[in-house]
Amino acid sequence: MADPSTSPPLTRASVAEARELIRPFVHRTPVLTSSSLSALASTPTPTQGEGKARPKLRLWFKCENLQKVGAFKARGAFHAIERLKKEPGWLAGGGAERGVVTHSSGNHAQALALAARANGIPAYIVMPTISAPPKIAATKGYGATVVFSGSTSVEREAVTAKVVEETGARLVPPYDHPDIVLGQGTLGLEFQEQVEAMMAEDVGGEKKKKKKGLDAIIAPCGGGGMLSGVALSCEGTGICVFGAEPSFQGADDAKRGYESGVRVESVSSLTVADGLRTPVGRVPWSVIYERRLVAGFYSVADADVVRAMRLAYERLKVVVEPSAAVPLAVALYDEDFRAMVEREAGEEGWDVGIVFSGGNVSLEALGKLFAAEEESK
Amino acid sequence: MADPSTSPPLTRASVAEARELIRPFVHRTPVLTSSSLSALASTPTPTQGEGKARPKLRLWFKCENLQKVGAFKARGAFHAIERLKKEPGWLAGGGAERGVVTHSSGNHAQALALAARANGIPAYIVMPTISAPPKIAATKGYGATVVFSGSTSVEREAVTAKVVEETGARLVPPYDHPDIVLGQGTLGLEFQEQVEAMMAEDVGGEKKKKKKGLDAIIAPCGGGGMLSGVALSCEGTGICVFGAEPSFQGADDAKRGYESGVRVESVSSLTVADGLRTPVGRVPWSVIYERRLVAGFYSVADADVVRAMRLAYERLKVVVEPSAAVPLAVALYDEDFRAMVEREAGEEGWDVGIVFSGGNVSLEALGKLFAAEEESK
Repeated sequence: MADPSTSPPLTRASVAEARELIRPFVHRTPVLTSSSLSALASTPTPTQGEGKARPKLRLWFKCENLQKVGAFKARGAFHAIERLKKEPGWLAGGGAERGVVTHSSGNHAQALALAARANGIPAYIVMPTISAPPKIAATKGYGATVVFSGSTSVEREAVTAKVVEETGARLVPPYDHPDIVLGQGTLGLEFQEQVEAMMAEDVGGEKKKKKKGLDAIIAPCGGGGMLSGVALSCEGTGICVFGAEPSFQGADDAKRGYESGVRVESVSSLTVADGLRTPVGRVPWSVIYERRLVAGFYSVADADVVRAMRLAYERLKVVVEPSAAVPLAVALYDEDFRAMVEREAGEEGWDVGIVFSGGNVSLEALGKLFAAEEESK
Repeated sequence: MADPSTSPPLTRASVAEARELIRPFVHRTPVLTSSSLSALASTPTPTQGEGKARPKLRLWFKCENLQKVGAFKARGAFHAIERLKKEPGWLAGGGAERGVVTHSSGNHAQALALAARANGIPAYIVMPTISAPPKIAATKGYGATVVFSGSTSVEREAVTAKVVEETGARLVPPYDHPDIVLGQGTLGLEFQEQVEAMMAEDVGGEKKKKKKGLDAIIAPCGGGGMLSGVALSCEGTGICVFGAEPSFQGADDAKRGYESGVRVESVSSLTVADGLRTPVGRVPWSVIYERRLVAGFYSVADADVVRAMRLAYERLKVVVEPSAAVPLAVALYDEDFRAMVEREAGEEGWDVGIVFSGGNVSLEALGKLFAAEEESK
């Protein structure tokens, strides 16, 4: 990772610069809409019962599940490499030959492997020996060298440090770095432009009042790299940005930290949203909380996450991993969020952007989640 | 359906007019690419073995599975209604009050129900009593009146005729009418424009030679309404259009008809690609065969269709129904197609558009198909 002192300032303009840097390498993922999901979001569900909020919600879905490697993480990884290439002395000093390293068993591992390969740079990925074989195979498939470690964070960091020592590879952390935050934030800029263009085109048919763009965006929050990047992309636009988390076993660390004013530094949760089991990092926290660029957090039960995944599958025909379904679950099922929208938006309602962060879930895992859901009914 | 004598001529210009008519009502569905699927398509698979074709294929996917009602059928249905409204005397004579009728248990039923509702017109859908309950519920969900019949075509047509007699509703057939053909063809025009725009943007990264658009499109062929419409949309562009069919139990009727010069008028196949169990209609045939606007047909085994569905799920993160996976199966697994591309395109290769026609498959059905695939390995 480039020395943070060489990173651009954390501003919307820097996100725009990041976007130019990574534009040739990542997909401009589509934005989808579904009148049936917007109608559903604007109707209290039976389980919510009488006297519940009746917000008017028009939903827009940014499909980063259709991004390269199946997740937004490609943006941050490509940006990290582009910034490293610009760090004074890195290329000249043989940095590209020494490579990059990270410890991750998830989407960041594959994203870094892809970005490194595209640049002809070696990538070392430290993964727990107990990682699922398809994830190991996928990471190797992108040309990375997989180095195994124990599964505690102490063990993984020790192995990572050893790789750095032996190879001189540069560490690229998954979220706690300005270059990662700026890279992930590029999806927010695209989202804003795409919705504006789609609203401008939408002149016939439903004959709804012309609007100028999104009122709010809900993004999932794990380490907070993407949420803080999206928040930067919205600074000064008037768009409210909200974080979405699972509530299971205290995985709503960002919400608790935001409300108490103290960042929660460790999380131990087996929420189904396995990409969101991490505490928020320091750099994201500075944007999310200290600069108050995130307007609030909402959290949902795992069962609601699975219900939202099913709707993404059935109504939108796209595959989302559990973590990616958390914002839709908030819009559909979280009474606090829904009451807030009803209060703030009134009759006119809100156009709400939902970030589908990734789609890496096997059909077998999806089938099991839905079968368990059916049984619990 | 409007009297065919009032339909525009079957030309590319008429497809463009159709597009303007339906633009406010349908999604401009995204076009996706996947470097891993293009690489896979450019590599002979192990089962193809030694000495097999090595075409260079760059694949582009038109995602009509993300269209309203989950299938391209929305285009034809909205166009049919718009054309009816323009038929002299239909509106003035109370046609809109009498409504429209069709017999279908598939995507056309839901598409017509949606298009009718959007216009405040009653829709009667004749469905076999044995239809799957979710399909009946979905059709009713779009506000249509479902009328049950026996499951043979004679029984369905008798009930349909009775509905016409009693209500004065106009029959809107699923594919054998110029207005349907022109409506479905609109996806082809969009596809061409989208790929051209994406190629123009793709200036960095892979630094490949600038191209001006698609070389070919492969579309599934059931009744042939969509294939013939896409063929019209490509007339005069130099883009080759191919039809893709399942080969199981003679479902490759269009291929057999095209090669023998005589349209096959009946099909009885239980291919997994349940949307393609129909023979080609007369109007589509006039475009496909008599005007030779389709360059050829390729057919694949059901097992290859399921393999292609899995790749759509795993690599592209989108849900496709079996019929929609047939063109991808042709590109990946059909030796005749692959040898032809190698011969025609040589070193430069081809940019091939793949039409994902629909996404209406339940997770349960998908799980069963993939489980059966695993067992047969």
